[in-house]
Amino acid sequence: MLDKTDPKFLWPRIRLMCQDAFSEFIGTFIILMFGDGVVAQVVLSNGKKGDYQSISWGWGIGVMLGVYAGGKSGAHLNPAVTFSSCVFRKFPWKKFPIYMLAQTLGAFCAAGVVYANYKSAIDTFEGGAGIRTVTGANSTAGIFCTYPAEFMTRTGMFFSEFIASALLMFLIFALKDDSNLGSGNLTPLGLFFIIFGIGACWGWETGYAINFARDFGPRLMSYFLGYGNEVWSAGGYYFWIPMVSPFFGCVFGGFLYDLLMFTGESPINEEWMGIPGAYYRMTSFARSKKEKTDSIV
Amino acid sequence: MLDKTDPKFLWPRIRLMCQDAFSEFIGTFIILMFGDGVVAQVVLSNGKKGDYQSISWGWGIGVMLGVYAGGKSGAHLNPAVTFSSCVFRKFPWKKFPIYMLAQTLGAFCAAGVVYANYKSAIDTFEGGAGIRTVTGANSTAGIFCTYPAEFMTRTGMFFSEFIASALLMFLIFALKDDSNLGSGNLTPLGLFFIIFGIGACWGWETGYAINFARDFGPRLMSYFLGYGNEVWSAGGYYFWIPMVSPFFGCVFGGFLYDLLMFTGESPINEEWMGIPGAYYRMTSFARSKKEKTDSIV
Amino acid sequence: MLDKTDPKFLWPRIRLMCQDAFSEFIGTFIILMFGDGVVAQVVLSNGKKGDYQSISWGWGIGVMLGVYAGGKSGAHLNPAVTFSSCVFRKFPWKKFPIYMLAQTLGAFCAAGVVYANYKSAIDTFEGGAGIRTVTGANSTAGIFCTYPAEFMTRTGMFFSEFIASALLMFLIFALKDDSNLGSGNLTPLGLFFIIFGIGACWGWETGYAINFARDFGPRLMSYFLGYGNEVWSAGGYYFWIPMVSPFFGCVFGGFLYDLLMFTGESPINEEWMGIPGAYYRMTSFARSKKEKTDSIV
Amino acid sequence: MLDKTDPKFLWPRIRLMCQDAFSEFIGTFIILMFGDGVVAQVVLSNGKKGDYQSISWGWGIGVMLGVYAGGKSGAHLNPAVTFSSCVFRKFPWKKFPIYMLAQTLGAFCAAGVVYANYKSAIDTFEGGAGIRTVTGANSTAGIFCTYPAEFMTRTGMFFSEFIASALLMFLIFALKDDSNLGSGNLTPLGLFFIIFGIGACWGWETGYAINFARDFGPRLMSYFLGYGNEVWSAGGYYFWIPMVSPFFGCVFGGFLYDLLMFTGESPINEEWMGIPGAYYRMTSFARSKKEKTDSIV
Repeated sequence: MLDKTDPKFLWPRIRLMCQDAFSEFIGTFIILMFGDGVVAQVVLSNGKKGDYQSISWGWGIGVMLGVYAGGKSGAHLNPAVTFSSCVFRKFPWKKFPIYMLAQTLGAFCAAGVVYANYKSAIDTFEGGAGIRTVTGANSTAGIFCTYPAEFMTRTGMFFSEFIASALLMFLIFALKDDSNLGSGNLTPLGLFFIIFGIGACWGWETGYAINFARDFGPRLMSYFLGYGNEVWSAGGYYFWIPMVSPFFGCVFGGFLYDLLMFTGESPINEEWMGIPGAYYRMTSFARSKKEKTDSIV
Repeated sequence: MLDKTDPKFLWPRIRLMCQDAFSEFIGTFIILMFGDGVVAQVVLSNGKKGDYQSISWGWGIGVMLGVYAGGKSGAHLNPAVTFSSCVFRKFPWKKFPIYMLAQTLGAFCAAGVVYANYKSAIDTFEGGAGIRTVTGANSTAGIFCTYPAEFMTRTGMFFSEFIASALLMFLIFALKDDSNLGSGNLTPLGLFFIIFGIGACWGWETGYAINFARDFGPRLMSYFLGYGNEVWSAGGYYFWIPMVSPFFGCVFGGFLYDLLMFTGESPINEEWMGIPGAYYRMTSFARSKKEKTDSIV
Repeated sequence: MLDKTDPKFLWPRIRLMCQDAFSEFIGTFIILMFGDGVVAQVVLSNGKKGDYQSISWGWGIGVMLGVYAGGKSGAHLNPAVTFSSCVFRKFPWKKFPIYMLAQTLGAFCAAGVVYANYKSAIDTFEGGAGIRTVTGANSTAGIFCTYPAEFMTRTGMFFSEFIASALLMFLIFALKDDSNLGSGNLTPLGLFFIIFGIGACWGWETGYAINFARDFGPRLMSYFLGYGNEVWSAGGYYFWIPMVSPFFGCVFGGFLYDLLMFTGESPINEEWMGIPGAYYRMTSFARSKKEKTDSIV
Repeated sequence: MLDKTDPKFLWPRIRLMCQDAFSEFIGTFIILMFGDGVVAQVVLSNGKKGDYQSISWGWGIGVMLGVYAGGKSGAHLNPAVTFSSCVFRKFPWKKFPIYMLAQTLGAFCAAGVVYANYKSAIDTFEGGAGIRTVTGANSTAGIFCTYPAEFMTRTGMFFSEFIASALLMFLIFALKDDSNLGSGNLTPLGLFFIIFGIGACWGWETGYAINFARDFGPRLMSYFLGYGNEVWSAGGYYFWIPMVSPFFGCVFGGFLYDLLMFTGESPINEEWMGIPGAYYRMTSFARSKKEKTDSIV
């Protein structure tokens, strides 16, 4: 796909090879710069420089501008979105690991920049330099990744992330479907409203992570920054829910859209909803792999 | 209209036949997911995760994204809008029942999902698992459908819903009128502002239902979920007002737009404002029906 | 300009003749429906159903949707905008009285509808049916038209309205100037931001009337509704300032844009900035009038 | 570039010669009219006529409308943006001083208008006519230019401005890059969101000046208006940071975008990332200058 001989000089050639990764990296980086930034400002200023609604704004703007920044790779900016695109829109599976890695790395780095910028304020808020807590009145770990509300059950947490992710994927497919209204050049603005809305309507219980990269990257960074093992154990080892649930949610949301509305190319629109085809492709893949293994042996 | 032989496989053929219903269902579903969702979050968090303005945002975003999702059927998402389209824009009357049913069902289902998601929080807010109240300090029925402010008279309730519905229909006709400015691909965004504005300016007294489906569907769901007979009796059996008033309001709003501004095809622009024509069509319909009945007898 | 023989039936012919008036009427009506509506909701609910920012939203949305509704007449919706268009953009002077009357009437009527809708709430807020006050803790006159902040001097009031009106006109000319960026189909959205911004930044001291029709129409309505002579005398007979100042402000703002930026047809771009031409046209008009008078005598 | 013989009359000819300066002047003027205006309204009304979020709105709207107003010169409205355009987009260096002067002057003048409008309110707030303070509970100097939060270190201040400026430039380059998504006619709206977001997420610590003109112009005006030497000395002679840091930040942000994403004409896409070329051009410039000097001598 890449014509490596096209750009004349070294760096542009390197960039061309890495364009997808750079693009997903920087797009997710932008999301977290605004997203973690706004939570930091609201939390650390005790609500004087923003309120809950500011947080909706911050994440909405982050995603909108992240989409503008990362447009060259399709601006998935979310492993679950990439995954659903592989399942329903023939996005090449082999790109999935690169996308997921770049997205997670982008979120990881942005969390570091937010930390560096708000270090003095975190010290003041926590009550001393170097104190870093995950739970308690002055904890600041919630700046970086999500923790569930106290009254939530395990099932409730999973369900909340599932629903919000399904909404996200359903609506992205709706915006991109030109046989429906289609949002055209308004897609990034539409994403602003989707994210703002999910934050205002479905954001309380689990903090609407709805994105492996957005949650795990900054969580890892906060672990490295000294918040301790509690970043993993808090909320009954909640950390894996925003990693896993968005994949199920996004696939379900994408399935629902294709089931009810989509008339373009999709497994749902193949024979028997694509199940025999998928089965055939999976087994033939396994067969060819086995054959290869056999022939090697 | 539907060429049932076109899609090759079974499900796409079924979907094509049901496209209008699916589209209205899912569009209204999206409205209520955001609309009831935001009220749940604001009420149940005691205003900590949102305020009155968030509610304007939630409903505005719900309608905007519902329009994107349900574009294939014209995205009426409101029986009164369908009704007015039949009266003023030659939308086929025979589609009216399907649209109304699909819209109401969409709203009904979304209310169920919102309930499922916020069940723990409702239990906490009401003060115990299974307690569900419609009135009182800890009541949560207002999450699902509208109840009037206390100081309102019956006439005032009807008038408030009437005015807000008239505004809605007048403005939708304005946005869609290409001989006026016309909003083109900005129509969903325009609807965001219409709904946000109605909420901010006309939303206090009766909660701006302005939509049979949005109000009756979730009310029925809340009845099934155990809120008791009070969902019907509260506010002096208020429940029928948001069912009936929007039809009058939307027809009046549509009439006003066509009267003052519209130059396209509309009964208002026919001879004697279309009244003789409408009378003739109604009587001929009755005649033909009577003839049929006679012939059967 | 109007081809009265074109529409076949009576009402469409009447409408065509009155299109400008209807369009300006309805556009200004829409502005006030949202604008006065939001102030009513915020004031009467004691800030529970909205805050100062809601008021910015309400007026911004009102103007945006008013522009969509009243597009057929150019959507001036403000006598001072019509006046400036006559001075700088060759808009025919003879249309000015019709526009101004229709705009004022639209605002007058909308104020009446807002009053009718919020009558019970006004009674409750004022402390009894029929009590209507302009000043004091429970006064509600401020719902309909503007009254200045207490600390303001007369000059300050005039200056505040002047500046805000100049900003308005300057920015409208900027949005409409296609040799500049030009806002194209985003003009109504641009107006939302202009009005929101003027409310957030220049709206405190005099309530940003910036519009003869928006202020005088509802003031007259509130007088008829029983608020008494104080609607005129309050703030040291402040009422004439939002009637007069916007004309000066808008002309100055329009002048500034044409002086610094505009390269299209404008008196500023004629010989000696159009002053000799304007003088000649005025004197020739006076001459021709005198001649006519002479010949009659 | 300017064909001075084209416009027929004197003033249009003068305007054509000064178009860049006028355009940058008026665009920056508009930014500050809304930006300083909203801070004045929020501060002086003790938060009754706006809150922190209003400030995000005010600056966002100011920049959006400033871009519409100043489109004829490219609407840089920020010396650091002009500087980065010279470095990365071949914007002519010789225009840099004119742009910077016009921008600073526009900001300077707008601060004066804001002061004139809010003079009575400032007197009331400060506790007496003519009292003007930079620090303390009733200080009003913060209306005009930025002062850092108390807990900030010098490095932290510089870093905060650096990051926010880098974000700004990176995102402007993203919006303008048509080989990426590109924002087309939505660019001014995109800038609204960028500025709103920076204010909500990165605006607490140093007040997001991110613009030499926006900060120095009004600071100078406030000095002339009698706020005393403290406008310079406050925050440990903080005033130079928003003058210097944005240049570094914007150049870094522009560099990052070109490094990772940009495929058009940029030094980064030349041989060895343009460093030899830049070195050659600089030395040849010095050589030619030396030669000229030599020849004169």
